[in-house]
Amino acid sequence: MIDLRSDTVTKPDDRMRAAMAAAEVGDDVLDHDPTMAKLEETVAELLGVEAALWVPSGSMGNVIALMLHVKRGDRFLAPAASHVISSELGAGAWLAEGMPDPLPWDGGPGRPTPETLRSAIGGPQPYFNLKTTLLCLENTHNAAGGTVTPPDEYARLVAVAKEAGLTVHLDGARIWNASVALGIPPAALTVGADTVQVCLSKGLGAPVGSMVAGSAAFVTEARRVRKMLGGGVRQGGVLAAAGLVALENIDSLAQDHANARALAAGLTELGWDAAEPQTNIVVAGVPDVDLALAQLRQAGVLGYPLPGHVRFVAHRDVSADDITEVLRRLEKE
Amino acid sequence: MIDLRSDTVTKPDDRMRAAMAAAEVGDDVLDHDPTMAKLEETVAELLGVEAALWVPSGSMGNVIALMLHVKRGDRFLAPAASHVISSELGAGAWLAEGMPDPLPWDGGPGRPTPETLRSAIGGPQPYFNLKTTLLCLENTHNAAGGTVTPPDEYARLVAVAKEAGLTVHLDGARIWNASVALGIPPAALTVGADTVQVCLSKGLGAPVGSMVAGSAAFVTEARRVRKMLGGGVRQGGVLAAAGLVALENIDSLAQDHANARALAAGLTELGWDAAEPQTNIVVAGVPDVDLALAQLRQAGVLGYPLPGHVRFVAHRDVSADDITEVLRRLEKE
Amino acid sequence: MIDLRSDTVTKPDDRMRAAMAAAEVGDDVLDHDPTMAKLEETVAELLGVEAALWVPSGSMGNVIALMLHVKRGDRFLAPAASHVISSELGAGAWLAEGMPDPLPWDGGPGRPTPETLRSAIGGPQPYFNLKTTLLCLENTHNAAGGTVTPPDEYARLVAVAKEAGLTVHLDGARIWNASVALGIPPAALTVGADTVQVCLSKGLGAPVGSMVAGSAAFVTEARRVRKMLGGGVRQGGVLAAAGLVALENIDSLAQDHANARALAAGLTELGWDAAEPQTNIVVAGVPDVDLALAQLRQAGVLGYPLPGHVRFVAHRDVSADDITEVLRRLEKE
Amino acid sequence: MIDLRSDTVTKPDDRMRAAMAAAEVGDDVLDHDPTMAKLEETVAELLGVEAALWVPSGSMGNVIALMLHVKRGDRFLAPAASHVISSELGAGAWLAEGMPDPLPWDGGPGRPTPETLRSAIGGPQPYFNLKTTLLCLENTHNAAGGTVTPPDEYARLVAVAKEAGLTVHLDGARIWNASVALGIPPAALTVGADTVQVCLSKGLGAPVGSMVAGSAAFVTEARRVRKMLGGGVRQGGVLAAAGLVALENIDSLAQDHANARALAAGLTELGWDAAEPQTNIVVAGVPDVDLALAQLRQAGVLGYPLPGHVRFVAHRDVSADDITEVLRRLEKE
Repeated sequence: MIDLRSDTVTKPDDRMRAAMAAAEVGDDVLDHDPTMAKLEETVAELLGVEAALWVPSGSMGNVIALMLHVKRGDRFLAPAASHVISSELGAGAWLAEGMPDPLPWDGGPGRPTPETLRSAIGGPQPYFNLKTTLLCLENTHNAAGGTVTPPDEYARLVAVAKEAGLTVHLDGARIWNASVALGIPPAALTVGADTVQVCLSKGLGAPVGSMVAGSAAFVTEARRVRKMLGGGVRQGGVLAAAGLVALENIDSLAQDHANARALAAGLTELGWDAAEPQTNIVVAGVPDVDLALAQLRQAGVLGYPLPGHVRFVAHRDVSADDITEVLRRLEKE
Repeated sequence: MIDLRSDTVTKPDDRMRAAMAAAEVGDDVLDHDPTMAKLEETVAELLGVEAALWVPSGSMGNVIALMLHVKRGDRFLAPAASHVISSELGAGAWLAEGMPDPLPWDGGPGRPTPETLRSAIGGPQPYFNLKTTLLCLENTHNAAGGTVTPPDEYARLVAVAKEAGLTVHLDGARIWNASVALGIPPAALTVGADTVQVCLSKGLGAPVGSMVAGSAAFVTEARRVRKMLGGGVRQGGVLAAAGLVALENIDSLAQDHANARALAAGLTELGWDAAEPQTNIVVAGVPDVDLALAQLRQAGVLGYPLPGHVRFVAHRDVSADDITEVLRRLEKE
Repeated sequence: MIDLRSDTVTKPDDRMRAAMAAAEVGDDVLDHDPTMAKLEETVAELLGVEAALWVPSGSMGNVIALMLHVKRGDRFLAPAASHVISSELGAGAWLAEGMPDPLPWDGGPGRPTPETLRSAIGGPQPYFNLKTTLLCLENTHNAAGGTVTPPDEYARLVAVAKEAGLTVHLDGARIWNASVALGIPPAALTVGADTVQVCLSKGLGAPVGSMVAGSAAFVTEARRVRKMLGGGVRQGGVLAAAGLVALENIDSLAQDHANARALAAGLTELGWDAAEPQTNIVVAGVPDVDLALAQLRQAGVLGYPLPGHVRFVAHRDVSADDITEVLRRLEKE
Repeated sequence: MIDLRSDTVTKPDDRMRAAMAAAEVGDDVLDHDPTMAKLEETVAELLGVEAALWVPSGSMGNVIALMLHVKRGDRFLAPAASHVISSELGAGAWLAEGMPDPLPWDGGPGRPTPETLRSAIGGPQPYFNLKTTLLCLENTHNAAGGTVTPPDEYARLVAVAKEAGLTVHLDGARIWNASVALGIPPAALTVGADTVQVCLSKGLGAPVGSMVAGSAAFVTEARRVRKMLGGGVRQGGVLAAAGLVALENIDSLAQDHANARALAAGLTELGWDAAEPQTNIVVAGVPDVDLALAQLRQAGVLGYPLPGHVRFVAHRDVSADDITEVLRRLEKE
């Protein structure tokens, strides 16, 4: 079975496992775990921010940021089908207490235009109306098919948000893919964001862990909120060690992108309605999602259901040869 | 100054004031206030439901329903710019803990089509995704311009919701206007709704008060939730008495509708971009909302700002002659 | 039936009803209702604070204050069995998001000592512990039997709180009773409190309404939070008018206190275990609460159950003669 | 520096690290990680319940249980200074939305009597009062000094709770210590509890991880709530492998208990006011906590501050010789 459901299925390799086994650790709630400390410094530097904090999942990283950025009566904006809106079980609403408002993709898949953003923010409001205080961006945008918001467009969105006094949070769970696709360093993609969340699992292959990052003051507060949510762990250095190895895998995402392009091209040749991928995610329109997934499974391939589409995600545990094999199996169907 | 900002500005008339002064009262938290009891029975009968509960505001009525209908991890659907989404300071999110998802108006102003609703509900979800459990409708739809959802369309929406196991809440703050516009009793507009909220202030003229209604079991729980929110009042009979008089004002809404039509026609003649009203709300597109409001105020007329539009609302404290006077003043501008 | 369950059962008298009927009103959500404005100024002056806001109930007043004073991870202190802890359905916890911690009554009924308060506050805490940020006092303390905290003791408690950087909220639902019992103006009892809640119903006889008061900045925010909770009302002036009349009833509470003393003395003579009341509340220990209430009801007297006790509350709808009659009826039992 | 602050400082040993490095893993959000599955079955069997779920921390395990057991308007009871009340940043209040009420220790340190519990539950309540729906017990009780509630007393408490319709949650973060101290299996200590939380870190030495356990239906819901809180992890098998090794360390806790007794005896000889420990926690009264901690640190020993006391915790990274060394160093002071 070739598993293309998500890049979350990647497993730690031997080097990563060895690093975990050898990790120097401490009690990261009472003091600070040394390997955690090293990971947090490394990620902060890589993202061009003051400080970073390890969290058990990207969802926790996002909700911590939202909990610190919004309060009751606040509205936050995000591109439609953003992870913070669609895929975090509503934590942005019931936990962070923000009122979400999805922005249409009139600037391309996963991307609102700055004009749409400005209009959504609107002008001053009377005391009995929602205050718009936060913009959440997602780069790459998962549900849109791993699409990239390029720096110039990103900068224009941030400028509109800042002019209106909004805080900006960047869900960069797959920022590494955007960085590789654009050929620019991750830090170039966080400019203007007050906070950013990035994942060490997914494409980079760590078993567990994400980071939420921003100013030192933000991270101090985030550490407290992490404890509140039950996300404070003791000898987390065993996971941080895996994270440090994962960060060495960023460049190798280029292979995933090539594999995704090969898959999309092959699917198109086979008559599928597959979009050209910008990164490692291929989205193909199908008339009947359940049926398509069943046929794929029959052929030994796992895809992931989206409304009207099947998603295939290239990742480090699937080689170029595996992609060829996937296409071979589908050809035989 | 002729105040057309909202029908919330209506003031109690002498008859209503006399009823308030004469009301028989009791402690409605410890036992039951007799005038409250009478109002609650009257409204339940009028709406064709088992029971009703007085609340200080329509917003509280809506949020009580949402608090009882949704829970963490649930998603609720409502037409875009519904009051529960846009005008209740996010209480549906932070207090009721639902994740809102706005439905586009592809069935007319304020109205999604049943197909859109079905597609938004989607199919079964994995355990880590939002569960869609509630549909909120609003009739008339305030932000769309007091637009009416007719019974056949309403029934089709409810059917889709019920088939998918959703609860249905109807925000009927202005259900009386829909009833009068359609020439059918209010109870004909609540068929299929599990719960409904209606306002006694607004067009009907009571100074304070709304009702949330549904099954007897729902109202028993709602009474407890009302107390939780600080909405339990003691000798509320003084307000219930006003509510009972207000209910006698339903038929007179026809005059407001006629006044709104006259206003829209007159505005159009004067070159305004005013939509034909379905009830008592006239929405006119303007190039600069702030400027338009300032010019109106200069002319002695108060309107209400909406994005790109000014709203004028006909109500019982504005006569047909007042509408003529408004148009005369605007002509002179 | 002579109703001594609570002073919440008091009914508006003719003068109050006439004031309601004649009240000048406006839309208090959109602008400001003139009678509301007058009430809010009057109460602010009476309490010696900058500003005040009408709310539908004392519970809403308290929870608004808590919502603005505490946040997730904060702990608030209050004497055991305070209304904010025991009688508001947990809103301080789930709505205001504070962690309550009850203080023992080692300074007398309803009253912790300053030493106990200091010890409960404790010293600096690590980042992963609760922060103590608020002290709630209640004067008179309802569940303790309408007991009064005198100004010197109150000042010592406030001093300890302020030294530790805590905010102080005063639940003054019956502050009028404390003021009359001590023979000092209400404003003398709010010194050092950041915010205070007072009731116009209960002993003063208004049908509906309480006030939450503090700095002008606090009240501006409180107005928004009131709207959030569904406590914003339109032509509230009809209730504010009753509130203004109610404020003229403060001095008459002395009669309630005399009646309570007469009741307690009479009960003691009849062999009851009744505490000498400090204000209008008599608490009598009974071996079986349900049985005692049933026997009272048989005799035509209504009391209120407390753990191991029956509470009798003197109020303006019960005269000295009524108290004599109560004792006569109980004597015959 | 000999670190006696907590048993949370224990580090994974070589065997545990090897197990982590060799762990078979899967995506535990999308499907199920095989090592996780094995750990969950093992713990469920050990605790005598249907099912168990891994969580990143004991705090998350407790709050998931509370989120599923209580709702707005519910009151939960727990011995004073329980971890769920004092040490989880109020999550039981703001996240699970319960109103906590601490029970006094009239049955011994950390233990209320059944009579106190019955009285705290009280009788039926009117609709506007809190409903008591949950009892949380903690065995061993950390803040009381690692004290054990023996099975007969535990059974009497549970019986009172069940009779009143309460759910029972057991915070068994250190249930292993209670089991060893009493010489009975862990499953004998969960009888009557609807849900239980246990820790794999602390005395057992796993770097990260706790379990929340109960019926299969509970665990299905708990898995969803874990995802809501951001506690769902992907290849968690690397941590589960450590947990499986940790469970083999239960018997070795007897050594920690012996070490704690030796430490307490030695401290007493040196003139400290140290209580005889029931398990691995020694609590010693000191006149000045900060001063005492500073002097200990000077001597190369780390303790943990409690109000008026210093806590010393014996754990697997401190040998009997280390305890002797601690006493030697303190003797020299």
